[in-house]
Amino acid sequence: MFIPPASPWTVPFDGGFDVRAAPTAPPADAPPAKRLRKELRALVREFDDLQRKLYGEDRHALLLVFQALDAAGKDSTIRAVLRGVNPAGVHVTPFGRPSSLELQHDFLWRTARHLPERGHVGVFNRSYYEEVLVVRVHPQLLEPQRLPGPESPQALWEGRLESIRDHERHLARSGTAVLKFWLNVSKDEQTRRLLSRLDEPEKHWKFEMADVREREHHEAYLDAYQAVFDATSRPWAPWYAIPADDKPFMRRAVAGVVVDALRALDPSHPLAPPIAPGEEERIRALLAAELREADAGA
Amino acid sequence: MFIPPASPWTVPFDGGFDVRAAPTAPPADAPPAKRLRKELRALVREFDDLQRKLYGEDRHALLLVFQALDAAGKDSTIRAVLRGVNPAGVHVTPFGRPSSLELQHDFLWRTARHLPERGHVGVFNRSYYEEVLVVRVHPQLLEPQRLPGPESPQALWEGRLESIRDHERHLARSGTAVLKFWLNVSKDEQTRRLLSRLDEPEKHWKFEMADVREREHHEAYLDAYQAVFDATSRPWAPWYAIPADDKPFMRRAVAGVVVDALRALDPSHPLAPPIAPGEEERIRALLAAELREADAGA
Repeated sequence: MFIPPASPWTVPFDGGFDVRAAPTAPPADAPPAKRLRKELRALVREFDDLQRKLYGEDRHALLLVFQALDAAGKDSTIRAVLRGVNPAGVHVTPFGRPSSLELQHDFLWRTARHLPERGHVGVFNRSYYEEVLVVRVHPQLLEPQRLPGPESPQALWEGRLESIRDHERHLARSGTAVLKFWLNVSKDEQTRRLLSRLDEPEKHWKFEMADVREREHHEAYLDAYQAVFDATSRPWAPWYAIPADDKPFMRRAVAGVVVDALRALDPSHPLAPPIAPGEEERIRALLAAELREADAGA
Repeated sequence: MFIPPASPWTVPFDGGFDVRAAPTAPPADAPPAKRLRKELRALVREFDDLQRKLYGEDRHALLLVFQALDAAGKDSTIRAVLRGVNPAGVHVTPFGRPSSLELQHDFLWRTARHLPERGHVGVFNRSYYEEVLVVRVHPQLLEPQRLPGPESPQALWEGRLESIRDHERHLARSGTAVLKFWLNVSKDEQTRRLLSRLDEPEKHWKFEMADVREREHHEAYLDAYQAVFDATSRPWAPWYAIPADDKPFMRRAVAGVVVDALRALDPSHPLAPPIAPGEEERIRALLAAELREADAGA
């Protein structure tokens, strides 16, 4: 089972993580924005190269899960880190409000359909974690799920967290490297970003009234995140708590974690073409003869 | 209904196209490779910018269909033209051998599930056109489709081409811009590329024995393509016959057609945030007051 390498942003696996103490700002010794952008560009180039090898090897998949409060920068981080990687090997799926068909299924069904194939990178913009985050903060969202019950709320959330943990262990065991990013933005920076969506015409379409209303539940969300990290940050499917108040720093940090994991996976192309060794010479001679004929005819 | 602008590579809509006379090599006055690569980079940047606007506007989708003989460069062209565009807005689907579930359905079902949403770019690496190309060349592939019959072969292929034409007109009518690319490679250049897959270790995994065998049917494929172009190149869903013997030229040409179409679509972000005009001032004041409080507290 693949264990991604440790990072300064790894959420510890022993429950010793305090969601409210995690930094939202970059460390004091962070490089300047210009250098971070340059490093990001180099990492994206390496990501593209490693993805190509992952595809040729056809043995592992990579799943990147992004969770965050509104306006933390999920969309723009996915854009910054994935643009430059061959889109034929990348599949980004956003998970918003579930459809009525999806509500007719267990809560892992809708995302399972979008898990990356071997050789591919899957990106979940939100994920099954919404089922223990927004649904926990707004338990009335459980009603259309028509769960068998009754069950105590405590047992319900613990059961869900256990289902997620088991699911991710199964994925890891099956060859999918699972990396989960929490983009940790401060409430003040969130306010500024929501204001900028009103101020800048090209950001207007991103503005949603619900994002403003959701801020009333800030503390409840942090509690739900705390439970998520305690229950689901594990060596084979770690969470990374990325300071998100500074975008260049956040993007560089996410790309660094992804590329470090791919380097550790160390995918390589197959060494021989997928044909019997004796066949190869025959085919080579046949194709070469055709070319010679064409040249003679020209 | 959106009509993509004309291009030198557009397959005429009047049936006056000769698949065997179409050039596989770039025109004599084509720019040198270095300049083509530079133009490609600029076009990809513009593509990314236009896709972002397409996404914000949420009114049109873009479907790019790629068909070609083996080793014409579908994969590498998709990579070259799409890498650099935000993968959250791009969905590339390769269509290989159909699954048994797919064979239980009409031939448009498997691709229809992967059509791009509004605001997105869908790329079909092969497509429903395989049903009138490889299946026409190898009619035994029809057997597991268990079609109602009997029907004359002529009626069968004409019926399929009509289904495709109707399907694409429906897509165009519904807001999807449909652009179809035939990467037209010569048989000699194909030979050279298959040989390079044997010669270069990092291309080994791409080699398939079936590609070599399929070359025996070269003329039958050209006949099938001729029927496709006659029946399905239409103003709202044109085919582009792109000379494919020179890769930098081919990529630049494909990117040019795509960006020209997007420029003509001219997507634009919505001008106002999606809230009632009276609301906006109230929200703005509320958010600004929160920030002032935070500053006073700091």
